[in-house]
Amino acid sequence: MGDPAGVGPEVCLRLLLHTPTLQECVPLIFGDATVLQRVADCCELGPLPRIITFAEWERSPDQITEPTIVDFSDADSEQVTPGVVSELTGRASYRYIKAAIEAATTGSVDAITTGPINKKALNAAGIHYPGHTEIFAEETQSDRICMMLTCDEITCSFVTTHVGYRDVPGLLTVDRILEVIEISDTAMTQLRGRKPKLVVCALNPHAGEDGLFGDREEERIITPAIDLARGKGIQVEGPLPPDTAFLPDRRRNTDCFVCMYHDQGHIPLKALAFDVAVNITLGLPIIRTSVDHGTALDIAWQGKAEATSMYEAVKLAARLAVARCEPTACHS
Amino acid sequence: MGDPAGVGPEVCLRLLLHTPTLQECVPLIFGDATVLQRVADCCELGPLPRIITFAEWERSPDQITEPTIVDFSDADSEQVTPGVVSELTGRASYRYIKAAIEAATTGSVDAITTGPINKKALNAAGIHYPGHTEIFAEETQSDRICMMLTCDEITCSFVTTHVGYRDVPGLLTVDRILEVIEISDTAMTQLRGRKPKLVVCALNPHAGEDGLFGDREEERIITPAIDLARGKGIQVEGPLPPDTAFLPDRRRNTDCFVCMYHDQGHIPLKALAFDVAVNITLGLPIIRTSVDHGTALDIAWQGKAEATSMYEAVKLAARLAVARCEPTACHS
Repeated sequence: MGDPAGVGPEVCLRLLLHTPTLQECVPLIFGDATVLQRVADCCELGPLPRIITFAEWERSPDQITEPTIVDFSDADSEQVTPGVVSELTGRASYRYIKAAIEAATTGSVDAITTGPINKKALNAAGIHYPGHTEIFAEETQSDRICMMLTCDEITCSFVTTHVGYRDVPGLLTVDRILEVIEISDTAMTQLRGRKPKLVVCALNPHAGEDGLFGDREEERIITPAIDLARGKGIQVEGPLPPDTAFLPDRRRNTDCFVCMYHDQGHIPLKALAFDVAVNITLGLPIIRTSVDHGTALDIAWQGKAEATSMYEAVKLAARLAVARCEPTACHS
Repeated sequence: MGDPAGVGPEVCLRLLLHTPTLQECVPLIFGDATVLQRVADCCELGPLPRIITFAEWERSPDQITEPTIVDFSDADSEQVTPGVVSELTGRASYRYIKAAIEAATTGSVDAITTGPINKKALNAAGIHYPGHTEIFAEETQSDRICMMLTCDEITCSFVTTHVGYRDVPGLLTVDRILEVIEISDTAMTQLRGRKPKLVVCALNPHAGEDGLFGDREEERIITPAIDLARGKGIQVEGPLPPDTAFLPDRRRNTDCFVCMYHDQGHIPLKALAFDVAVNITLGLPIIRTSVDHGTALDIAWQGKAEATSMYEAVKLAARLAVARCEPTACHS
């Protein structure tokens, strides 16, 4: 459900009314029934579906055949104020995530989609992570992961993400770039049902222009990784100048852009397709997708939240879960 | 005309046939008549307009009343091979630029629009500049300049441009950011005919998220520059997270985005509006615009070049020249 004070509850309720998504999976909302009822009243999104307590769910997790709210019923959920995050809301959102990871790890659910959480709220609750992805990595002991953002228009995966601008060059290694190329190739093969075409972006403007700009990161680090990936049979081009990599023609012919840093991929993705992209964490032992937006506290509980990213995230999670059983079945 | 071996000659010929642009100015092409005739034959873009030699033009530069080719007639222009740059083509393109700067400085022309040049060709000719902008800065002894890219969809100006990724943080100072905000405000006031709204992008992802990422460049350098600019009456917001700065809503309400580095602005600009943006060098004593594309050697002299950026660049140069005489006249 994400942070109770944000738009997470509303987009979950909209999901429960979205027939095309319900045809692909049976959603369980890990959240708070009191909060969801209050949001349903505010946004005219009721009535709520079946509600069970977390304890009930734990006793027989395989009995779920219809959309269900799994209620963590925090004692203070009456106290949540729309748009105001707190220690309470941070702790609650973290509980949902931990329980979901446990449920996916034990096979009680097939996949997880996360609603938006709030870092200030997490910090207020004494929980210190840059974001969801790091929680998933730690809880599942995964150290070979990468973030991917995907939508019809464009898909990007990331060599580095939540680090300062100046820390990026020091984090680029041949091994890490090769790892992200390989993980992206595997994921896109699953998603497309065919061998994908990847493009790797350069770090420097104009791809360094033969060493004129930068420290030859292209020649020293990026190109060797691309050569190794090609040696493994991966279809990958680059390093391309970052500003021309994302032109319309190139987008049509590229399944995934491997980006060196957060904003290199997030800028074109959000400029072209805000609110519809899905975030996938690749390299986990479980399936995890996420909405591509934050808690949007300024419009929380007002009936104004756009839920497309949630629909798409859940559908993609469902397809990845099917593909895990039937390796060529998830390309839509 | 730009580099003779690239698409520059073709887009110049297309300009000479483009009535809407010809209604706003009288174009002079500083270039080579032999090359232009060969390109006109290849691309079916003839006949050529009036041709005079550079010596003739120098004797009476004020006699121009119709579109004219000013022929620098390099002895070797028969030797130019389409798509193959060389010492010859680099030296020729540099001659056109130098002569144009001289002509604008003495007032013989009102403004300059540059066609695409090629850095390898310039280097082969022993001329070492990262690009046009640096030639203009040096020739006009201007040290307070900035690059701006503009089109209907989005306008960006740049605090840093042709430097390596890792060199950017060291080049950010309160003074330089304030300078670019001020220059951008002046230019957009001229272009829009009203007080513009500026947005300044952060350096770090999520604008550093209160110091969580990066070295507090937002708090230490960018915010103080914005505060100083506001104190001077400039309407400016920021620093905004770079990935959400360019969302559609924000673009509609922003006259210019002040970007910290080359790809921060070039990525969204090219993804959204490739081939139509115009490059302006702000802060020169003369007016200079440029096409937003390179020499495109793979399609040179083939009749395939898109000339919209040239039309827009020339029209903008003409409007800026008019605005220089009549300060509120150039907003279209």
